[in-house]
Amino acid sequence: MNRRGILVVVSGFSGVGKGTLMKQLTERYGYYALSISATTRAPREGEEDGREYFFKTKEEFEELIREDRLVEYACYCGNYYGTPRDYVEDQMDQGRDVILEIELQGALKIKEKYPEALLLFVMPPDAATLVERLNGRGTEARDVVRERLARAVEEAAGAVQYDYMIINDDLEQSVEEVHYLIDSQHNKISRNLDFVEQVRKELITFSKGEL
Amino acid sequence: MNRRGILVVVSGFSGVGKGTLMKQLTERYGYYALSISATTRAPREGEEDGREYFFKTKEEFEELIREDRLVEYACYCGNYYGTPRDYVEDQMDQGRDVILEIELQGALKIKEKYPEALLLFVMPPDAATLVERLNGRGTEARDVVRERLARAVEEAAGAVQYDYMIINDDLEQSVEEVHYLIDSQHNKISRNLDFVEQVRKELITFSKGEL
Repeated sequence: MNRRGILVVVSGFSGVGKGTLMKQLTERYGYYALSISATTRAPREGEEDGREYFFKTKEEFEELIREDRLVEYACYCGNYYGTPRDYVEDQMDQGRDVILEIELQGALKIKEKYPEALLLFVMPPDAATLVERLNGRGTEARDVVRERLARAVEEAAGAVQYDYMIINDDLEQSVEEVHYLIDSQHNKISRNLDFVEQVRKELITFSKGEL
Repeated sequence: MNRRGILVVVSGFSGVGKGTLMKQLTERYGYYALSISATTRAPREGEEDGREYFFKTKEEFEELIREDRLVEYACYCGNYYGTPRDYVEDQMDQGRDVILEIELQGALKIKEKYPEALLLFVMPPDAATLVERLNGRGTEARDVVRERLARAVEEAAGAVQYDYMIINDDLEQSVEEVHYLIDSQHNKISRNLDFVEQVRKELITFSKGEL
């Protein structure tokens, strides 16, 4: 059976640990493809083109938009961010499940274009744990933490539009959970209509012929 | 978190091995509850009331129907078969996933009453394997096998109305697949709306208070 890859969209509150979760997932199970976004924002220290992001000029990015070569894109704080289509499609054609880490608006655009996409929302076990993790970073001023929490409140209202949630309590366990969840999606009937039809046709042949 | 059990409906062609699969599943993972049907057909040799079936008189069964104490029921070959509601509801309330082995019509009735039910269809890897298994039983006359195949053709057309399929190729692996599939369904957002709302409310409190 030629199984096509699944497009997995992952979102979650700032500080919930979705980056670490996805990194562990792709490291532990070799066959996931982590999609890299294109952006017009300037690279930060230590960031490499093609690793954290594909860094583009505004002109280059707008050309990608005009040529419909982005699966979704958005503008945050004066910079473009988007998901290059070629990479996503190629990987899925090769049967690899592709992971996109993007936010609510992008997630909903993806679901519109790819109804079979799997939308995952990473949740903390409770709000106190999230606050602790945000404070624990130490580097953030109180008002930055407060801003992130205000944003998390909005994002939580959008979480109900996702398909599944993962509670990121124990990292090891969460990584396994995500893996089994994605894997099980390959068994959806809607992804296997050709196979079911093929077996049905074979059964017709057998029921009419020699046994 | 108080997680409610999932109602899992399992169907599949005669001879596909769904009985063995479910038996292995419940034996290996102790917490599944296998629902037992009520029927008016006479017990066969070796069958025990409350193990294979709850054996009822026609009058008793019709009383169950009148009192709405069946989740679904149907009449095959002059006998009633149905799923007692109390057992199913009690087990789900206790957080146990309940497995019902029933056919297409019953499965669709369940889905109507319990939209969150999980409908699984067990498939053979291909039609030839199914024919082999049916012939392999040795006890069946050719025309019985042919009849079962004709029925399988019809059932295959209905399989597309299920949620997921399991290919029963390697038993060990199929048992694990079913387990992880059912388990992952607990993470559906629609099953966790209370939890998401609770975290959202906690976040509001934190974002307004001391950090």
